[in-house]
Amino acid sequence: MKTNIRGFIGCDAGYEEAQAVLFGAPFDSTTSFRPGARFGPAAMRAESFGMETYSPYQMRELEELSLFDAGDLDLPFGNAAAALGEIEGAAAEILRDGKLPCLIGGEHLVTLGSVRAAAKKFPELRLIHFDAHADLRDEYMGERLSHASVMRRCHDLLGDGRIFQFGIRSGCKEEMAWAHGRVKMEKFRADTAAEAAREIGEAPVYITVDLDVIDPSEFPGTGTPEAGGLCFSELLDALLSLRGFDVKAFDVCELSPHYDRSGVSTALACKTLREMLLAYL
Amino acid sequence: MKTNIRGFIGCDAGYEEAQAVLFGAPFDSTTSFRPGARFGPAAMRAESFGMETYSPYQMRELEELSLFDAGDLDLPFGNAAAALGEIEGAAAEILRDGKLPCLIGGEHLVTLGSVRAAAKKFPELRLIHFDAHADLRDEYMGERLSHASVMRRCHDLLGDGRIFQFGIRSGCKEEMAWAHGRVKMEKFRADTAAEAAREIGEAPVYITVDLDVIDPSEFPGTGTPEAGGLCFSELLDALLSLRGFDVKAFDVCELSPHYDRSGVSTALACKTLREMLLAYL
Amino acid sequence: MKTNIRGFIGCDAGYEEAQAVLFGAPFDSTTSFRPGARFGPAAMRAESFGMETYSPYQMRELEELSLFDAGDLDLPFGNAAAALGEIEGAAAEILRDGKLPCLIGGEHLVTLGSVRAAAKKFPELRLIHFDAHADLRDEYMGERLSHASVMRRCHDLLGDGRIFQFGIRSGCKEEMAWAHGRVKMEKFRADTAAEAAREIGEAPVYITVDLDVIDPSEFPGTGTPEAGGLCFSELLDALLSLRGFDVKAFDVCELSPHYDRSGVSTALACKTLREMLLAYL
Amino acid sequence: MKTNIRGFIGCDAGYEEAQAVLFGAPFDSTTSFRPGARFGPAAMRAESFGMETYSPYQMRELEELSLFDAGDLDLPFGNAAAALGEIEGAAAEILRDGKLPCLIGGEHLVTLGSVRAAAKKFPELRLIHFDAHADLRDEYMGERLSHASVMRRCHDLLGDGRIFQFGIRSGCKEEMAWAHGRVKMEKFRADTAAEAAREIGEAPVYITVDLDVIDPSEFPGTGTPEAGGLCFSELLDALLSLRGFDVKAFDVCELSPHYDRSGVSTALACKTLREMLLAYL
Amino acid sequence: MKTNIRGFIGCDAGYEEAQAVLFGAPFDSTTSFRPGARFGPAAMRAESFGMETYSPYQMRELEELSLFDAGDLDLPFGNAAAALGEIEGAAAEILRDGKLPCLIGGEHLVTLGSVRAAAKKFPELRLIHFDAHADLRDEYMGERLSHASVMRRCHDLLGDGRIFQFGIRSGCKEEMAWAHGRVKMEKFRADTAAEAAREIGEAPVYITVDLDVIDPSEFPGTGTPEAGGLCFSELLDALLSLRGFDVKAFDVCELSPHYDRSGVSTALACKTLREMLLAYL
Amino acid sequence: MKTNIRGFIGCDAGYEEAQAVLFGAPFDSTTSFRPGARFGPAAMRAESFGMETYSPYQMRELEELSLFDAGDLDLPFGNAAAALGEIEGAAAEILRDGKLPCLIGGEHLVTLGSVRAAAKKFPELRLIHFDAHADLRDEYMGERLSHASVMRRCHDLLGDGRIFQFGIRSGCKEEMAWAHGRVKMEKFRADTAAEAAREIGEAPVYITVDLDVIDPSEFPGTGTPEAGGLCFSELLDALLSLRGFDVKAFDVCELSPHYDRSGVSTALACKTLREMLLAYL
Repeated sequence: MKTNIRGFIGCDAGYEEAQAVLFGAPFDSTTSFRPGARFGPAAMRAESFGMETYSPYQMRELEELSLFDAGDLDLPFGNAAAALGEIEGAAAEILRDGKLPCLIGGEHLVTLGSVRAAAKKFPELRLIHFDAHADLRDEYMGERLSHASVMRRCHDLLGDGRIFQFGIRSGCKEEMAWAHGRVKMEKFRADTAAEAAREIGEAPVYITVDLDVIDPSEFPGTGTPEAGGLCFSELLDALLSLRGFDVKAFDVCELSPHYDRSGVSTALACKTLREMLLAYL
Repeated sequence: MKTNIRGFIGCDAGYEEAQAVLFGAPFDSTTSFRPGARFGPAAMRAESFGMETYSPYQMRELEELSLFDAGDLDLPFGNAAAALGEIEGAAAEILRDGKLPCLIGGEHLVTLGSVRAAAKKFPELRLIHFDAHADLRDEYMGERLSHASVMRRCHDLLGDGRIFQFGIRSGCKEEMAWAHGRVKMEKFRADTAAEAAREIGEAPVYITVDLDVIDPSEFPGTGTPEAGGLCFSELLDALLSLRGFDVKAFDVCELSPHYDRSGVSTALACKTLREMLLAYL
Repeated sequence: MKTNIRGFIGCDAGYEEAQAVLFGAPFDSTTSFRPGARFGPAAMRAESFGMETYSPYQMRELEELSLFDAGDLDLPFGNAAAALGEIEGAAAEILRDGKLPCLIGGEHLVTLGSVRAAAKKFPELRLIHFDAHADLRDEYMGERLSHASVMRRCHDLLGDGRIFQFGIRSGCKEEMAWAHGRVKMEKFRADTAAEAAREIGEAPVYITVDLDVIDPSEFPGTGTPEAGGLCFSELLDALLSLRGFDVKAFDVCELSPHYDRSGVSTALACKTLREMLLAYL
Repeated sequence: MKTNIRGFIGCDAGYEEAQAVLFGAPFDSTTSFRPGARFGPAAMRAESFGMETYSPYQMRELEELSLFDAGDLDLPFGNAAAALGEIEGAAAEILRDGKLPCLIGGEHLVTLGSVRAAAKKFPELRLIHFDAHADLRDEYMGERLSHASVMRRCHDLLGDGRIFQFGIRSGCKEEMAWAHGRVKMEKFRADTAAEAAREIGEAPVYITVDLDVIDPSEFPGTGTPEAGGLCFSELLDALLSLRGFDVKAFDVCELSPHYDRSGVSTALACKTLREMLLAYL
Repeated sequence: MKTNIRGFIGCDAGYEEAQAVLFGAPFDSTTSFRPGARFGPAAMRAESFGMETYSPYQMRELEELSLFDAGDLDLPFGNAAAALGEIEGAAAEILRDGKLPCLIGGEHLVTLGSVRAAAKKFPELRLIHFDAHADLRDEYMGERLSHASVMRRCHDLLGDGRIFQFGIRSGCKEEMAWAHGRVKMEKFRADTAAEAAREIGEAPVYITVDLDVIDPSEFPGTGTPEAGGLCFSELLDALLSLRGFDVKAFDVCELSPHYDRSGVSTALACKTLREMLLAYL
Repeated sequence: MKTNIRGFIGCDAGYEEAQAVLFGAPFDSTTSFRPGARFGPAAMRAESFGMETYSPYQMRELEELSLFDAGDLDLPFGNAAAALGEIEGAAAEILRDGKLPCLIGGEHLVTLGSVRAAAKKFPELRLIHFDAHADLRDEYMGERLSHASVMRRCHDLLGDGRIFQFGIRSGCKEEMAWAHGRVKMEKFRADTAAEAAREIGEAPVYITVDLDVIDPSEFPGTGTPEAGGLCFSELLDALLSLRGFDVKAFDVCELSPHYDRSGVSTALACKTLREMLLAYL
């Protein structure tokens, strides 16, 4: 008798043969307003079975890929440094084995762990970032490892001109000013992604999607809803426009499913992940 | 002392004088993911009183029509064949009496009962179908009478070239392939409805609206939300563009009100029904 | 030891030095369908701390303004006349002291109190009105002081040609007919606001925003959701297009937060208020 | 074709042959804290079909009674005096026709309308009152027709010693003091009901149940939850202990179903009504 | 890299060494009122990690047992006969391998599959049944395989005097009459369980817990809430009082988690399962 | 014009004249399962206005006390040590000024800050603790400053025999064993509180109430619901039985209002605080 406790839909391969490895980081300890992103990865696994494995957008089939779902990391609540270490370790192992790490957050800070692993392996790494918030503060309420500072910490690693932001529609005055000349920030829109990122060329790419880049009407399941966001189709078009780049790792973050009892946000998150898997593998 | 338990707003006529008859089919037994469409018709009756009877889109007044609300059919849970028989019987009676049957689902399978009655009376029947899902599987988990197979069963009745689909954005690989040359499927959009349906000409028409054709941001009250759908205005424009056709019956399906406690989905369903009544009578 | 019970974000000034004064009118007694707008002002204060004080749209900072939040008026439930008296009194005091009154509803009827005060001080007052509903009935179920009659009562004060409506998509046949030649009503859209209002010129202006002008997908937290509304960006563009006018007072109304447990509607209301404060001060 | 829009379960008689008549008063305009009791009667009708018609407590069958459900009265929001007039009229008509009026609230103020009709027909009327709140204020925020004053207004009609209260666990200092010698108030419990009411003897009785007498754990669907209430079995025992009295009319009030999405409160309200019908007919 | 997708807390053994095997039956197709028990097993697995593995009631530790969680069976929606076949097959396999089958429903009909397997292996089987509802109808809306008939079908297998019911507080008149002399029914209470079941002696026992035997205040997450139920402590005492019997299999059913968003019902279900595992192994 | 943004009901005094000072600690960063206690204090302030200021249990009036509500402390998320420092500072200031500190949590860890201040001022301090959980672990997932360790840290300060626990019904095997001879733990009940605490005599007392000591049926608004708890009346009786002791400070913790949308849990928390204020001042 075998167990039938399921991961994300279509993840039927063993680790060895998998091209890509999904792993969840159920962490939200630095969330300042409304916590709950810790429940994101589990919700996505359960809800994924309401979705087809076939994409009518790309006319590709998830079940034709080899995917492994590693489940969730065991992360210590309230200790961001330790949690990031765990995440970096997992991502590094997956990269070492020549597979694509697909991180499911959790709050956006978890991205830092995965970016660290990727930047170590690929020193020329570029970061493409979809988000409502710039996340460029140097610290937030005294904390440098904060969801509001994650892109600033990534900049510490990657340096000027390596981070490309899209859909930004919220930030404090100081971070917006700091960004000039350091990161390439496209406010309010994402349809310029392929064009703006053209300079990346052959360089290795990490793509991070804070799902609150989507308008809260389509994605209410998040802690800090910001009106005036992208619609799903705009995000999807932008993501598909990046298919030519050399994507080495990616993540989707900030689903907080308890704030959307309808399941709509979780379903959108699943569909985003399906499309990213089909696009970059 | 008379009772004051109300049907859908504006349905103040007796059966005899009514031009159109609303009837509910509170059935969701074949729903595979999240049930609840059984509660749709009752929710729509209650919520309809939050809406005006006047349409600023068509500048017409619902109270100037003669409408009868027959309430809900008593349908056996778990027996799709018997439920479809009940629905077909009711639709046939309404058609026989020269009135327009307006079915309120329930899951989308209920459409089959009403289409059977219409196709018997009007052998040249065409079917115009708005939906997120193609519903063209030959069977689902072994069942041929399933919400996921309803359009396939309609095709069994109507044959090639008689079904026109709009807004489709989900399906398995096999049904998408099967559809070629058999049904006219417009993916992702509906603004082509009038143009695509022009070949119908004078033939009798059945219009079925699976409300999940609407984007889940506007219509979260449904069991299998699919991001990237139509907005209400797009659906409304498409429905109004079909006013010239000879509509013999129609339905609206798949409102599952418990998944949207705000009442927004139910209100949208009511408004869709108001506009269809005003458009096709 | 001082108390740290907070008003709306950024309202750190005392009354004396404030340029603008926020005051809440937690009243919904004439609501006919689903009550709850009484909870709007308190919800906005609490949720406002999830929002930045900086606007990337106007590139202005709320904390650079001098704002005072007067909290909520104590209004008698079930006595519309008395409640309107309280609201008028507060607005008149703020106007007398040369400050901008910013009323937070409550149901839309509360606007009448504030408009009365403004019209007494500025006899040439014009009213710019964003709403899904025309609110032009002469009475509703026998009541002349009703949310459904508030614009009609404003017309009693201001006369023909002084009221400019945008985004209207619901009304009864009679009020739509009555409106012709009396108020300037733009149905379904608001992008014409600046153009349509050009004739106002230098005259003093009151702007009232019934937040249900926004589509219920983006703003489900309201009592009578009407599909087919504006998106936030459209409302924002319209509001910003009015920056040149001489705005003497404004309000935002009809947030009913209990109908949207995700917090999305409240966050949108806060952002609308932030942008209006930055635009008209 | 007949309509199948249903009233309360088991109400299959016409008005003429009915022994008892249910009528709803969907009114909550004087509610000061959290409105929503207006939705109570409709929720009870819908939910009643989840309940058996047979009582294992009384071993009696609802379908063996002759019951008529008159639906809801059309009551003007915001006008308590007019609403009470409508309610009194309906109750008087039912009493005149020799039937038992069974009022479904709505906020507790609606009881006053029904008590007026009963007191006119039965001048010796006694009132048995189950409630968490004493409802004995002379006015509330200036209003004498308020949910918080309903028993005081009944006392105006009935005089000293005619009102018997059970389960009271909330009141202001003044009303508690006023009650001494005027009403018989049992705090916190109801198991003394039959004993305390023994002095009523053959006199005609009106029983009013504010469902918030039940502990909010069992009945969360109410506007002002008060911990420390009765459990359902205690209320049921008390109600059944009153079977020997000459009950002329009764009501159940203050179900506010939106505050309990589980349906538990509504189901409890239905069961209470079933047991009262079986006990007093 | 191993996967970390978890079953029920404490289920860390492989199938081979396990003393007991948990398996879920996510089926609710015959539910007539409010569906959703299909989501019960998955919710219990996720919520179980909020609970300690140590029982202060029995002073025993779940981690000292050898438990295997087989996950959920894949059951065909809408086909009760086929679903029961799957359940019976799984239970028979577990019994054949000398382990304790612990079934997690799903609606109560699933019990029949497991009881069939147990009765085949243990012809002297007795059934101890905790439930709000008698479930003794011969058919329900024409269906003999229905949640409302499950105990009747078990009686078909086991015969008179073999079924012991506790906590029953709902049933139709006919089934209550039929029960006399055939099943031993204790209405409203369960504290007599050990005494009433004493006659079972050494015979093999199946225990089925329909969780709605608990009062809906403590367990609102169920489709047909019946006020006046047991509290958790009463159920626990009854279950622990049965420790001396030869329990061969058991189940817990009818958690419908969506109706209780607080998680309280799911937590109670988990705790019940923990205590049953500790009591009967 | 003065502001009307309100604290807890009845808190109308200035700091100087106040006998007792309420202060909120909106912190939940170490919560391991379901966060949200950070929203407790604000919810209690808003909900308190649905409650009378008069207690029919103690026949005392809150408005006759002098109370000051200091609002919420600004606490750094994710830094437990710093947060505890802030809390200790506020409690120390209030104690220094001869007033009663009344802390409103937040997760239970916040108690440690207030106990530290009290223990410094009153070295003979005893701690009376109502809770579902023992909270006696030495560390939790590596953290010594954790909600699950708060009583262990208090024991570090106070030593053996100074902590009296009531209502405990959950703990790991190790902490239950550790407790013997070190803390006085009453499992499952609290009616022995006065008797068990008699040995305290004249010594100064701190009372901490983790509201999850209440059964989750009455208090679902908490992160880790444990069936089988006290009812409100049992807790109230226990609290009132402690009126003779020399209470120097107290707290109520662990209301997580988002998990109970009905408002019932928040109302119970408010009532508990009202009764404690009336009992110990």
